[in-house]
Amino acid sequence: MGILVGVVGFRGYSGAELVSILDRHPAVTPVLMEHRSDSEDRPRPRGWQGPKCIPCTAEAVRGEGIAAVFLCTPHEASMELTPHLLDTGAKVVDLSAAFRLKSGEEYQRWYKEAHTAQQLLPEAAYGLPEFYRDRIRPARLIANPGCYPTAANLAIRPLVESGWLDLGAGIVCDAKSGVSGAGRKPSLKTSFCEVTENFSAYSLLDHRHVPEVLGNSGLELSQFSFTAQLIPIHRGILETIYFRTAEPVTTASIVELYERRYHGEPFVRIYEPGKVPDIAAVAHTNFCDIGVKYDPATRRGVVVSVEDNLVKGAAGQAIQNMNLILGRPETEGLL
Amino acid sequence: MGILVGVVGFRGYSGAELVSILDRHPAVTPVLMEHRSDSEDRPRPRGWQGPKCIPCTAEAVRGEGIAAVFLCTPHEASMELTPHLLDTGAKVVDLSAAFRLKSGEEYQRWYKEAHTAQQLLPEAAYGLPEFYRDRIRPARLIANPGCYPTAANLAIRPLVESGWLDLGAGIVCDAKSGVSGAGRKPSLKTSFCEVTENFSAYSLLDHRHVPEVLGNSGLELSQFSFTAQLIPIHRGILETIYFRTAEPVTTASIVELYERRYHGEPFVRIYEPGKVPDIAAVAHTNFCDIGVKYDPATRRGVVVSVEDNLVKGAAGQAIQNMNLILGRPETEGLL
Amino acid sequence: MGILVGVVGFRGYSGAELVSILDRHPAVTPVLMEHRSDSEDRPRPRGWQGPKCIPCTAEAVRGEGIAAVFLCTPHEASMELTPHLLDTGAKVVDLSAAFRLKSGEEYQRWYKEAHTAQQLLPEAAYGLPEFYRDRIRPARLIANPGCYPTAANLAIRPLVESGWLDLGAGIVCDAKSGVSGAGRKPSLKTSFCEVTENFSAYSLLDHRHVPEVLGNSGLELSQFSFTAQLIPIHRGILETIYFRTAEPVTTASIVELYERRYHGEPFVRIYEPGKVPDIAAVAHTNFCDIGVKYDPATRRGVVVSVEDNLVKGAAGQAIQNMNLILGRPETEGLL
Amino acid sequence: MGILVGVVGFRGYSGAELVSILDRHPAVTPVLMEHRSDSEDRPRPRGWQGPKCIPCTAEAVRGEGIAAVFLCTPHEASMELTPHLLDTGAKVVDLSAAFRLKSGEEYQRWYKEAHTAQQLLPEAAYGLPEFYRDRIRPARLIANPGCYPTAANLAIRPLVESGWLDLGAGIVCDAKSGVSGAGRKPSLKTSFCEVTENFSAYSLLDHRHVPEVLGNSGLELSQFSFTAQLIPIHRGILETIYFRTAEPVTTASIVELYERRYHGEPFVRIYEPGKVPDIAAVAHTNFCDIGVKYDPATRRGVVVSVEDNLVKGAAGQAIQNMNLILGRPETEGLL
Repeated sequence: MGILVGVVGFRGYSGAELVSILDRHPAVTPVLMEHRSDSEDRPRPRGWQGPKCIPCTAEAVRGEGIAAVFLCTPHEASMELTPHLLDTGAKVVDLSAAFRLKSGEEYQRWYKEAHTAQQLLPEAAYGLPEFYRDRIRPARLIANPGCYPTAANLAIRPLVESGWLDLGAGIVCDAKSGVSGAGRKPSLKTSFCEVTENFSAYSLLDHRHVPEVLGNSGLELSQFSFTAQLIPIHRGILETIYFRTAEPVTTASIVELYERRYHGEPFVRIYEPGKVPDIAAVAHTNFCDIGVKYDPATRRGVVVSVEDNLVKGAAGQAIQNMNLILGRPETEGLL
Repeated sequence: MGILVGVVGFRGYSGAELVSILDRHPAVTPVLMEHRSDSEDRPRPRGWQGPKCIPCTAEAVRGEGIAAVFLCTPHEASMELTPHLLDTGAKVVDLSAAFRLKSGEEYQRWYKEAHTAQQLLPEAAYGLPEFYRDRIRPARLIANPGCYPTAANLAIRPLVESGWLDLGAGIVCDAKSGVSGAGRKPSLKTSFCEVTENFSAYSLLDHRHVPEVLGNSGLELSQFSFTAQLIPIHRGILETIYFRTAEPVTTASIVELYERRYHGEPFVRIYEPGKVPDIAAVAHTNFCDIGVKYDPATRRGVVVSVEDNLVKGAAGQAIQNMNLILGRPETEGLL
Repeated sequence: MGILVGVVGFRGYSGAELVSILDRHPAVTPVLMEHRSDSEDRPRPRGWQGPKCIPCTAEAVRGEGIAAVFLCTPHEASMELTPHLLDTGAKVVDLSAAFRLKSGEEYQRWYKEAHTAQQLLPEAAYGLPEFYRDRIRPARLIANPGCYPTAANLAIRPLVESGWLDLGAGIVCDAKSGVSGAGRKPSLKTSFCEVTENFSAYSLLDHRHVPEVLGNSGLELSQFSFTAQLIPIHRGILETIYFRTAEPVTTASIVELYERRYHGEPFVRIYEPGKVPDIAAVAHTNFCDIGVKYDPATRRGVVVSVEDNLVKGAAGQAIQNMNLILGRPETEGLL
Repeated sequence: MGILVGVVGFRGYSGAELVSILDRHPAVTPVLMEHRSDSEDRPRPRGWQGPKCIPCTAEAVRGEGIAAVFLCTPHEASMELTPHLLDTGAKVVDLSAAFRLKSGEEYQRWYKEAHTAQQLLPEAAYGLPEFYRDRIRPARLIANPGCYPTAANLAIRPLVESGWLDLGAGIVCDAKSGVSGAGRKPSLKTSFCEVTENFSAYSLLDHRHVPEVLGNSGLELSQFSFTAQLIPIHRGILETIYFRTAEPVTTASIVELYERRYHGEPFVRIYEPGKVPDIAAVAHTNFCDIGVKYDPATRRGVVVSVEDNLVKGAAGQAIQNMNLILGRPETEGLL
């Protein structure tokens, strides 16, 4: 049966993806934790056996010997549940935004509400293993990154660190996501007839994921423009990132930069100079794929960074983090 | 029966859209001009009567008394056909790129082939009525703008003209188009299974439409980054355009800038400060809709410009131009 | 300004389509009638002027001199509003199911609730002009047909009337609809992520539209199998209808049957023997297109009947009915 | 490295799915066999390592010690390649239609061309394990079933065997498939803009898959109506199957019939009475899911049978067959 891990919010798209990946994980077994049922289940064939389901309580977590709990819940629920779950000795991987920012003030500024579990912010590790693997391993609380910031930070930070950028020009990140990023709760904005044969921009310049990029890429607010957009597809994120260098470089040297930075990383893949990935390249996988095109004459460049928002952007990365905190091989169950 | 106008390339998506709009035009009647048949017709009900079809020859144009010919043909065919058609006394609205650039050298640089009708470039009017109405009216040859440049130029030029831009930062235009922009000829890239549930970038920094933006917006190459991307929808373009101002302004003042520039323009619509249009707002119409969001703290702004690539981006704008050169009311058949 | 007609439920998909078609109608002007606001409006450009909006009351209808009111409301609301609206002298075209069946008992059986305006059932005319034009013209209350029954009845009744069918085998109608048929109210079943890359059947054998087919095609319940299915598209219905003949006939003779039955009908189009229409053939039009394939060796045949569920299946047919009851040319505003 | 199996036609959709599933199979390793390259490869990240690629020759098969070869080729190529491959001692699982029918005459009648390897028809086992497991195990040549017939036969044969059907009424199978069923070769019919927001019927009554249903379900041609239709999705098949019983039965008794017939079958799942599966229930799996609704009053019933056309309808079933002929557990690599 292996190590037991709990999933709260298992009916949403991230939660369901998590359960589905965990079902194939060789070392752990998922347990559903019923919190608030606000979504319908899908019809199932006769005899279908899902994972065991227990209440979302500290007692049940202790009684079952749950080693880690994934929270696929709204941030308000995560702030409420996390302290109680940590008290049981279980580790927590929170997929909400509750513990991603560094202070209650920053949280208040972007989420327009008070943080109700600020005491946990200092110990929460931001779960982007490619940057913070060593802080993640010993942590008992992981703030699993937002979907947009994962693809953005992996693409932007090496550029910032290179020292090559013309930071006066800043960086533009034009981000596009499939509809599952908006969650499973029905709304007009995610209704089929409103989305199909359409494409729309939202949260121009003030998306809540912006501080997660600033805090982990090395950029400052004045150097960064971010817009989120809705693609009429189920899953997948593509971010088109524009930069300018202070001095001319080459596409090949930027590709080399990424290659060096991500050498040995199992889930970041770099493309040949001038080639860029599309969403199909990473759908249903935990990869973030990155490609670059650069023009020395204008010193302007473009990076395309793609991921599956439900996998590397949510459930897959959460399991990558779980593997780290439970001492399992980082790629287990993910390749 | 009204004024007769010919359509060459009527089986492609732009050509079919053109015939469909012309069918409802109160003053003109479309005539199909059979050039090379490389596409299948759709099945039709019994008794279906399409427009009259004639050969694509100077004789037929003269014989029928065709007043204007629309070329929905590849640029090679347009360069070949246009001189002969003009000789008949008919006016030509060319939807290809053949006559959009200012010189044979510029054409050669971006299209990688020699221009075979350079003698016509000086007299060709670039058919963006909102900028060049007075040059269009008397012209006998109209270079109908590219789909991407129409939405880009209408959004960018007022910003450039304002003098407010930090041109060192430059302008980023992240453009997305529905699949009909790639034409009706079958290819792997436009096959359903390659496009659905996918999103991809192409022609990063070197799209052939770039010189059309530079030549009509006032930007220089070093100030402009452009990427084209494929949305899994049939029709529609959304461009997300990023800029920085030298000094802080406000969203309202930028909206005001657009309002003033496009006051009285029938086909450009501006949104309230902070509101932006989506593709559904303009599908099947000749409108280009523009909205702005700007942050004074960072001096960064975003413009969203949308159009239907087959209408304002092709057939609709071609008819707007035809109305001008035939002395008809500019909006006739288009509202 | 022309004749004023009111639209209740103008934010739903049928209502919005109705307003959009009426906006182009040369003889009538739509007036929005605010009943219950449960849907959001789309964002609009500055200066956008929609139709006039009045309250949904008898006083307002009298005060404005509204000649006819379209009800794009749930059937409960239609039963409640219709008597009051008729009292004003206005005619009513009801797009709900409230007045489509012949008795309160039949309504109760299929809709599982009591009919609250039974007194109006005898005078309600079933608004399928191709069958009941003469009853529609003088009526003050039109029950606009359901989307599925329109395509089904137009295809099935000529077969039944021919006397050629093997009625023991019965007729199978496998019906598929775009998602707009389910209305604009958000629900999990019509959420983008549940619909895209999916296809599902619902209401097997017991769809509420079945009695509308039986009552107007000449079939009996035991002779008819009907299943509704959801296509991941916005709009359009395709019904595949299977029959068997008692004696061998030919595809051509069945096509001839349809041709004769619908000779002169402006909105029913028949295809050549063996050719069948697809949804694209009728999208955004008021046509119902019909094609047939038949195999004499097995005496088995298939009819494909298509329509746009929002036009011939709802708003377009409602305007066709309005034209009839207001004494206008039947096709006015619809071609 | 395990058992080596070759894949010819690995760039098509079925072939790529096959390689993808085999990559995760614990006992076998795929080898690509280059036959004719008529499709492009997708772009790949740097360092991407696909399976080994060898020529499609008898020598290479012998030299590598390939145990079995999958042919994802047109039937003409399968007829040509199979004899040479069998001569090497390798087993062949052919995904084309070449060996599915029982005689050269039947093949000629439906495929309109002569069969060029008729001598192999007697030994070819029809690869539907749920019906023919015992014939498949010892065979060296497997005719992998067509996508439509798999879902149809699994649903229809238990009904025929029950003796309950009114065979005079016959069975109607209204089949719908995602676009990948048409293969990866670009064509107008599978172009994005022709398919999106559309739905179309093809091969009415004379689809080439009909004889595969007749030959394995127990039905005769005069008792069967079949129509294929194109859903605007990538993958998945849903078949709506209509029948009538001679005497009244119940939904529960029909569900029981299926349960008994498929008891212990790992890849056929039955739904509760009145519940039916949708395509999402089986996407990316090797399951065929079946649900039933029946009305005793009319003796009419509907079965919904779904599968992923690329898995149970092609590559998955091919691997199920490979497991059987190589003596592996039938479900290995497929759950």
